[in-house]
Amino acid sequence: MQACGIIVEYNPFHYGHQHHLKKAKEISGATCIIACMSGNFLQRGEPAIIDKFKRTQMAIDQGVDIVIELPYAHTVQHSDQFAYGAVNLLNELGVSSICFGSEQGDISSFFKSYQAYQENKEDFDSTLKQELALGKSFPLASNVAFEAIGLGHTNNSLDLSKPNNILGFSYVKSIHAIDPSIKAITIKRLQSSYHDQTITSPYASATSIRHELIKQQAFTATVSPTLPASSKHYLETYKHETGIWHTWEAYFSLLQYRVLTMSAEELQMIHGVDEGFEHRLKRTAKDVMSFQEWIDILKTKRYTQTRIQRMFVHLLTNTSKAAIHSIQVDKKAPYIRLLGMSQQGKDYLNQTKKNRTVPIMTQLNRNIPMMMTLDERATDAYYAVIPRHLRKQLRMQEFQPPYQT
Amino acid sequence: MQACGIIVEYNPFHYGHQHHLKKAKEISGATCIIACMSGNFLQRGEPAIIDKFKRTQMAIDQGVDIVIELPYAHTVQHSDQFAYGAVNLLNELGVSSICFGSEQGDISSFFKSYQAYQENKEDFDSTLKQELALGKSFPLASNVAFEAIGLGHTNNSLDLSKPNNILGFSYVKSIHAIDPSIKAITIKRLQSSYHDQTITSPYASATSIRHELIKQQAFTATVSPTLPASSKHYLETYKHETGIWHTWEAYFSLLQYRVLTMSAEELQMIHGVDEGFEHRLKRTAKDVMSFQEWIDILKTKRYTQTRIQRMFVHLLTNTSKAAIHSIQVDKKAPYIRLLGMSQQGKDYLNQTKKNRTVPIMTQLNRNIPMMMTLDERATDAYYAVIPRHLRKQLRMQEFQPPYQT
Repeated sequence: MQACGIIVEYNPFHYGHQHHLKKAKEISGATCIIACMSGNFLQRGEPAIIDKFKRTQMAIDQGVDIVIELPYAHTVQHSDQFAYGAVNLLNELGVSSICFGSEQGDISSFFKSYQAYQENKEDFDSTLKQELALGKSFPLASNVAFEAIGLGHTNNSLDLSKPNNILGFSYVKSIHAIDPSIKAITIKRLQSSYHDQTITSPYASATSIRHELIKQQAFTATVSPTLPASSKHYLETYKHETGIWHTWEAYFSLLQYRVLTMSAEELQMIHGVDEGFEHRLKRTAKDVMSFQEWIDILKTKRYTQTRIQRMFVHLLTNTSKAAIHSIQVDKKAPYIRLLGMSQQGKDYLNQTKKNRTVPIMTQLNRNIPMMMTLDERATDAYYAVIPRHLRKQLRMQEFQPPYQT
Repeated sequence: MQACGIIVEYNPFHYGHQHHLKKAKEISGATCIIACMSGNFLQRGEPAIIDKFKRTQMAIDQGVDIVIELPYAHTVQHSDQFAYGAVNLLNELGVSSICFGSEQGDISSFFKSYQAYQENKEDFDSTLKQELALGKSFPLASNVAFEAIGLGHTNNSLDLSKPNNILGFSYVKSIHAIDPSIKAITIKRLQSSYHDQTITSPYASATSIRHELIKQQAFTATVSPTLPASSKHYLETYKHETGIWHTWEAYFSLLQYRVLTMSAEELQMIHGVDEGFEHRLKRTAKDVMSFQEWIDILKTKRYTQTRIQRMFVHLLTNTSKAAIHSIQVDKKAPYIRLLGMSQQGKDYLNQTKKNRTVPIMTQLNRNIPMMMTLDERATDAYYAVIPRHLRKQLRMQEFQPPYQT
């Protein structure tokens, strides 16, 4: 049995994801699809709209065979580290291919760019460093560095200013670093741009779908056509059970409380609080009345919304620089956390058992230090905004068997 | 003009307090009453039912001439440190007498006990140490130590197992240590025992009044006769403005979130988390659904409810052992925070200006380190459970002139 890996957040699972899944099966020829999925907090520094357990069920119901969790230490990070963590885990599970969606949609552009990048890595790195020193944000500095080695979006077939091309490029780099025999596949995204806030077709972006769901707090005629019935079911069930769909605004009071009761020195120990940003946090915390207001006050060219959001996730989960540094993120994964599987997925795991050197964990286990501690904390911080009498049973899901069909 | 000092929490101001105030004026012959009042968190480790600003207004309206705040570093502490901080501040304001309520009601008993205590201090201290080492709580160990030097409640006119006698004894000790020329006065408490949970007369204890208010969330026929009209007015106004009367339950989610996202090592740095209690906190946090449930699980003979509550206040305000140790609580006060005054109080402050060596602060000032930082944090932690759009204006009260009539 051959497996194809995909790297997902499913926030929530929509028709674009369904298309991706179908195409991944078709093109790879694999009979087992393994999704490496972000947990309760996501790559761009946001709480997922519903928890990882419900999102796992969405995925399995839609035809994914195995869902594993990308650990927190890899998830709330820039694209290279996110990609490395995910490809590393998929490789441990023996996938023959990895299929990702991109704005570009043609893998040869990725390979050409990768080759040029490899040949000019030193130039790229020195330009990147210069631009960062000039106060540019990481995405902007990367753009200039790509431009400098002939990979700018004006002169290259791969536009590396587009979010899914950037991620895809990181996947290709990680595949080369970890196991170049894994076949990289890309398909063109059908859904609108990641940054789109409005729904314009059934292939709407997850951002626009969430935007509409949160605004209306219901499945309106606008949003309904963009979601498979099973996604609607799980979104509805979660809200019915907990009373909420998660947004940053729900965590605003916790964040404000944290900043107001921490010293600048303590803030400075949080991963992502750099270059004196602790003082800006302290200065602004007392006057703000919403998360969005706070972001608007804090963000600059250098401190993008995504960067600040990631920092806020680390603050919420109390993730220190020391904790992140103690995890050797570029080394062998200490565990693979299994969240769900189909019968097909189960068969695959049984058949490939002998080849595996990394343990599969079906629940949280506190004997594995730091990386899993962060996963547990992320879960506790995530559920902190749920009514108090439900928290215990929700966190207990961490200790129950994986979802299985 | 002569001043008499009183040490209060007014949580809330009731007829027992009114009686205390009247008697303090009568017996001392003073024309100015100065109240040293706990801020937003109280000596026994609880949030005050309404904030210090409204409680100041209650006090001034009822005839107190000056209200100063007992700093957080002195308030959420055992009786000796609480008493020392308060007497120290009242002494700086030049009071001639200090009047306190007690179960005993006769000052000569306090003096006799104090003399016996002074003469047998070494025996007392060594017995106390022994008993603490045996695992007794501080109040229980103190009782045995008093017994050992002939001051047990069976053989002494002063029963040092009663909460207000204990506090009174601490006041008498502090007066002797700071300035023995201050006249100590005590009156017998009219209201029922501090620990009483039910209202049995108009002179009800603050505990029973709060209990009834919180339970009914209104001024019932039971609670109304126990409160002067002005107290009702301020309690009502506060609830109308903020939506709540503060209880520990309102802070439960914040406390649980804190414990779940902190490491045992970080918990151990919090003032009051001693002897491995951090592990008990971590172990119990995940299963509890209310503050009372948590206290019931945590408390032991050694860890009394009061001790645990104080620890929870320090956890909520992120007050570290290092912060408390950096404040030399037995030294000269760095400032006197003025919360409110009558015209009489203002005249007194003007007349005594020349004699003062400690600055009077009419608002928070961040240039005075640590002690005031803790006061500010206490305010921010206290308001963390208020609706987000009100927090800014509530905390702004820290920067407005004192209440004045």
